[in-house]
Amino acid sequence: MASKEIPYKIYLEESQMPKAWYNLRADMKNKPAPLLDSETKKPITAEKLQNVFCKELVKQELDENTAYFEIPEAIRNFYKMYRPSPLVRAYCLEEKLKTPAKIYYKFEGNNTSGSHKLNSAIAQAYYAKEQGLVGVTTETGAGQWGTALSMACSYFGLDCKVYMVKCSYEQKPFRREVMRTYGASVTPSPSTETAVGRKILEKHPGTTGSLGCAISEAVEAATVKEGYRYVLGSVLNQVMLHQSVIGLETKAALDMYGVKPDMIIGCAGGGSNLGGLIAPFMGEKLRGEADYEFIAVEPVSCPTLTRGKYVYDYCDTGMVCPLAKMYTLGSDYIPAASHAGGLRYHGMNSTLSQLCYDGLMEARSVSQTEVFEAAEFFARVEGILPAPESSHAIKVAIDEANKCKETGEEKVIVFGLTGTGYFDMYAYEKFHDGKMDNYIPTDEEIEKALSNIPVIE
Amino acid sequence: MASKEIPYKIYLEESQMPKAWYNLRADMKNKPAPLLDSETKKPITAEKLQNVFCKELVKQELDENTAYFEIPEAIRNFYKMYRPSPLVRAYCLEEKLKTPAKIYYKFEGNNTSGSHKLNSAIAQAYYAKEQGLVGVTTETGAGQWGTALSMACSYFGLDCKVYMVKCSYEQKPFRREVMRTYGASVTPSPSTETAVGRKILEKHPGTTGSLGCAISEAVEAATVKEGYRYVLGSVLNQVMLHQSVIGLETKAALDMYGVKPDMIIGCAGGGSNLGGLIAPFMGEKLRGEADYEFIAVEPVSCPTLTRGKYVYDYCDTGMVCPLAKMYTLGSDYIPAASHAGGLRYHGMNSTLSQLCYDGLMEARSVSQTEVFEAAEFFARVEGILPAPESSHAIKVAIDEANKCKETGEEKVIVFGLTGTGYFDMYAYEKFHDGKMDNYIPTDEEIEKALSNIPVIE
Repeated sequence: MASKEIPYKIYLEESQMPKAWYNLRADMKNKPAPLLDSETKKPITAEKLQNVFCKELVKQELDENTAYFEIPEAIRNFYKMYRPSPLVRAYCLEEKLKTPAKIYYKFEGNNTSGSHKLNSAIAQAYYAKEQGLVGVTTETGAGQWGTALSMACSYFGLDCKVYMVKCSYEQKPFRREVMRTYGASVTPSPSTETAVGRKILEKHPGTTGSLGCAISEAVEAATVKEGYRYVLGSVLNQVMLHQSVIGLETKAALDMYGVKPDMIIGCAGGGSNLGGLIAPFMGEKLRGEADYEFIAVEPVSCPTLTRGKYVYDYCDTGMVCPLAKMYTLGSDYIPAASHAGGLRYHGMNSTLSQLCYDGLMEARSVSQTEVFEAAEFFARVEGILPAPESSHAIKVAIDEANKCKETGEEKVIVFGLTGTGYFDMYAYEKFHDGKMDNYIPTDEEIEKALSNIPVIE
Repeated sequence: MASKEIPYKIYLEESQMPKAWYNLRADMKNKPAPLLDSETKKPITAEKLQNVFCKELVKQELDENTAYFEIPEAIRNFYKMYRPSPLVRAYCLEEKLKTPAKIYYKFEGNNTSGSHKLNSAIAQAYYAKEQGLVGVTTETGAGQWGTALSMACSYFGLDCKVYMVKCSYEQKPFRREVMRTYGASVTPSPSTETAVGRKILEKHPGTTGSLGCAISEAVEAATVKEGYRYVLGSVLNQVMLHQSVIGLETKAALDMYGVKPDMIIGCAGGGSNLGGLIAPFMGEKLRGEADYEFIAVEPVSCPTLTRGKYVYDYCDTGMVCPLAKMYTLGSDYIPAASHAGGLRYHGMNSTLSQLCYDGLMEARSVSQTEVFEAAEFFARVEGILPAPESSHAIKVAIDEANKCKETGEEKVIVFGLTGTGYFDMYAYEKFHDGKMDNYIPTDEEIEKALSNIPVIE
């Protein structure tokens, strides 16, 4: 099998697409710690969570034992409009780097939302529709999740209300128009529309916002409105579950050609794309069937895994969400206005946090300028203009390929190319003009942020 | 074969990709009239054309008898980075329209240039490189061709100088950044950089420019600079030749499932995407092997095929290019600042003009607002946000599908979805805000424009 010539792009047949999502927690010995009720500080009940989230999604969120969840037919049909996504063999990149490494990337940007976010958006919209809801509320950072959700809601005829992190809202006016094209309403966050937004604005006047703030606003908006629930594009285990479609397709495509990766690299904001990409591979590792190296890449400006603490913390700035045990910089931490808006989250998915804590996955942080250098290089060589978020993974993949050049190792490197940067040209412009900031938080700042995390026994 | 279940997206295998381009002129009894030298008004010689265009491309331009041109391996390898493009069965659209028609579209937008333009850009850059040139100059309307050429030049290490129609330059600042990412320089046209630009500005102060103007500037820039040639993204027969890869893939994909289209629809600006899409089908029709209906769709604001004259005319406003026999509104005609920048060209590819003249293809014009209505509808139903240009074809495909609903006919409709609208959100914003203009030129305006066309015997 391994000798079969590998094409530039490996597409699965429609019939080979996954029929079930894979729940990595089922194979973990050390399960992630349970979510805690923000009032009682006790493990949260399904009943209470259902005030905020759709019923079926709560079930998925809390289930740590069922390995596979069937993907409903309506979702599989929607997937067929833009999936399977290609697994690309980066022949041109390998040649340009003169590396003996074999590089593959799973490209999730070939859809109008421009990223992997659509994989979970359509699932969440589906369950909201099934539950008979009128609509959903959410936050968006870079705008990719908001766009994805708008598309999904439009497909199922649901109302969609998006709180968009203010700095992204201002840098990406056209994202708003895409969401409007799909019938969504978009509000810059923090806003005066919600009590929590007003409170945040009072405490941090002139703030450019953060995912944590926007989450709080969206949660409030969902709970005060009849027939609405809140949906979230990352961080939660249900999202990581839906995103397992990325990893399952990747594995199926590699298996077709008898290729076994040595390392798998992904960018990490809330953790869902990385978690989805690595899920089936990590499952094999946990079951002792194979070994892989996993690398999570985050921005130095928001170094959750590399400089955060592994403790219980609030998932949102407004402290209205449940608490999760995770690597965190503190729910009060507002990262510098980096352009990788999708990675500006203070915490990290609890499953990935546990895996990192257990030494099953490595984390690295990279600076904004080196990320854009890698992005532009990649765009020119592979012909895809990557999103700043995705480019964090590109940067480390190139680093690793260069190491192989030195050692002569023919490692198989797989990375997740989560999306395209067509709506990030403002950031590219800053990079071209040499005006890109490269902020690294000081030790004092990080310590101060960490000291604000509430102590939960 | 016909009973085999047709997937949502038909992808050819890499090995099934065309190895040669198809030159439709070889099968035409009435060949398009030859290009005329703008000075002598006699058929232009290869020697003279080579002052402006690359040698190999001149050969392709003038050859009306060779049916197939081999695609060089370097180009085929580049194609593999983003081709084969999917032929999509529009199941969702059919269901939404409740039409018995079977709708397919060939989607050319899954690449960073966002359109089919890359198919010819990489070919033209390749031949420039082979000829040992330093770089190329070009014009761009909507920005798609400029982006495509930037990518292609970056791949082969060529310098790239783009004159961008001023109204597009202003409406699409991010397009410029994409081109810069690929190392190109971009100038709004008309500019004061060239003699012809200065002349046009004097005659039409404050003009928002047109493709015709930008072509003149790019041609001038190429001929005054050592080691440069001019390349063009549409109109020419060489471009239509390269774009035949669209039609060849479409036909191969349909043949795999035993599907025979009844009608093939494409938008028409300079004509290259439409010409490329229909080429192998029109070839069959010309050879009497099959029959198809062909529809060219243009904007009412620039009604070349529907209201123009079939005569010799200049291809550019500055009259520095050769003359072509084609449907034209006059090289002096500057269309209203419609948002479908890629369709604002006064003329039409000479091969397509001849086919229209001979009654082998139909032409229709549609208004901007109805185009955007179709675009938004399509985006919501099929999940792809289309470019305004491409949406002209969508509009007519929907019209035809609705007719089938009335008559009960199960027609097979194929249309070309040439690109995505991610850089057209300014136009979508105008549409959402109800501020879209819908200009239809008066009979007087058209008559005046036509009366300015030089009379060539």
